[in-house]
Amino acid sequence: MTTLGLAALQSAGTPRDVEANLAELDRAAAGASADVLVTPELFVTGYDVGDLTGLAQLDLTARVADIAARHGVAIVAGLPSPGRDGRVRNDAVFVDDTGKLLARYSKAHLYGDLDSRFDPGGEPPAQVTYRGVRFAVMICFDVEFPETVRTAALAGAEVVLVPTANMEPYLGVNDHLVWTRAWENQVFLAYVNRIGAEDTTRYVGRSRILAPDGRDLAQSGTGPDLLRATIDTAEVSRARSDFSYLGSRRPPLYRLG
Amino acid sequence: MTTLGLAALQSAGTPRDVEANLAELDRAAAGASADVLVTPELFVTGYDVGDLTGLAQLDLTARVADIAARHGVAIVAGLPSPGRDGRVRNDAVFVDDTGKLLARYSKAHLYGDLDSRFDPGGEPPAQVTYRGVRFAVMICFDVEFPETVRTAALAGAEVVLVPTANMEPYLGVNDHLVWTRAWENQVFLAYVNRIGAEDTTRYVGRSRILAPDGRDLAQSGTGPDLLRATIDTAEVSRARSDFSYLGSRRPPLYRLG
Repeated sequence: MTTLGLAALQSAGTPRDVEANLAELDRAAAGASADVLVTPELFVTGYDVGDLTGLAQLDLTARVADIAARHGVAIVAGLPSPGRDGRVRNDAVFVDDTGKLLARYSKAHLYGDLDSRFDPGGEPPAQVTYRGVRFAVMICFDVEFPETVRTAALAGAEVVLVPTANMEPYLGVNDHLVWTRAWENQVFLAYVNRIGAEDTTRYVGRSRILAPDGRDLAQSGTGPDLLRATIDTAEVSRARSDFSYLGSRRPPLYRLG
Repeated sequence: MTTLGLAALQSAGTPRDVEANLAELDRAAAGASADVLVTPELFVTGYDVGDLTGLAQLDLTARVADIAARHGVAIVAGLPSPGRDGRVRNDAVFVDDTGKLLARYSKAHLYGDLDSRFDPGGEPPAQVTYRGVRFAVMICFDVEFPETVRTAALAGAEVVLVPTANMEPYLGVNDHLVWTRAWENQVFLAYVNRIGAEDTTRYVGRSRILAPDGRDLAQSGTGPDLLRATIDTAEVSRARSDFSYLGSRRPPLYRLG
């Protein structure tokens, strides 16, 4: 049995104010009482805050790594990085409790006008084994495609981490879709959202940490929050002992090209 | 624009009493005021009612076709048919308003002990174009696999019909999972369930007809019901005009073998 403490920071952040956001992340890390702390999408800069080209040039990953090492907590943080053709990537980095970068994932499914500025990632969800637990990392719109989470689960993920910036009128994604992703793959899933507003975008909060049997281990409202849950990987096999979705699949019948 | 009336019979049926069930279907067809009437899984015989080998030998499809022709309404009905090795198939047939058999689908994903008696189907969901509307037919546990509905939607289905026999403690499938299937594929979806109990199985009712944007067009409680909804296929393209999940997929990034 492997258990691990997970914390999720639901926050509005401070638009384009990297120092304010890193200070907020530092405070959350100091008080996380967890092994892994997850932020919303693009927490370090803001999401709907205009051109991120300049901010993406800063070594934001090093700053997050420094916070992780200082407080001895792994961090999965949303931040921009330089992409192709002068564009910006919408990334999530996974740094361990010594500040070592274990994975960098770039959002692959881009949502409408707000995402069209980004250089899309070209890889499946990042897979990271940390303290004996197998994590996958994806970002916001990625989770809305069943193929993404299925790919992660088939690759062995026990816990799916999803920094997000989900907005009105898409509360159904929080209420129904992410429940379905945890349930149909029998995995833990943390959906970590923004609150408040940026420009005309109004975020819906309602972050959740779900168990492999669909139970809510923790859930937020629409205000600032630091969610916590204990991940016990034995729950994955327990959920699959009644029936296993992964084991009952019929791939020859699927036409998914 | 193509519009069509859909009706869904939520019922307990009468265990193993084919004549009583056909009489109930006849009454529902007479009062359906719809183009297509859908029943729950194995409505004609019952689901958790013991050995179906004998009942599967009867030509139940012909009896359903007769009802369809008599009332001028297409019917999608759950009934057993003979399978391989003396086993029984758990089928749904689609007969048109003249009684012509347009498709027969055999449940492909089998759920635990209750389904282990069945000979599983070996085909993707049945696709039927009727009165200008493209339908897919699958059964109960099939819909819990995102691959099944995705396969249907990619093949062009606008309306997914799901006769089911969903039971306690799986109400989350009604409340969250089937919403997600309609939403993530931007299709109409009718989830047509049993009520009451058979042997130790207690069905949860709560049938739903969902629109491509996740709205409930009709929903039942836990009692007998005849749900109705108008299908307007323009809603499929309207839902996909904001953003299209099918069009935003990244198949090279999926590992679904």
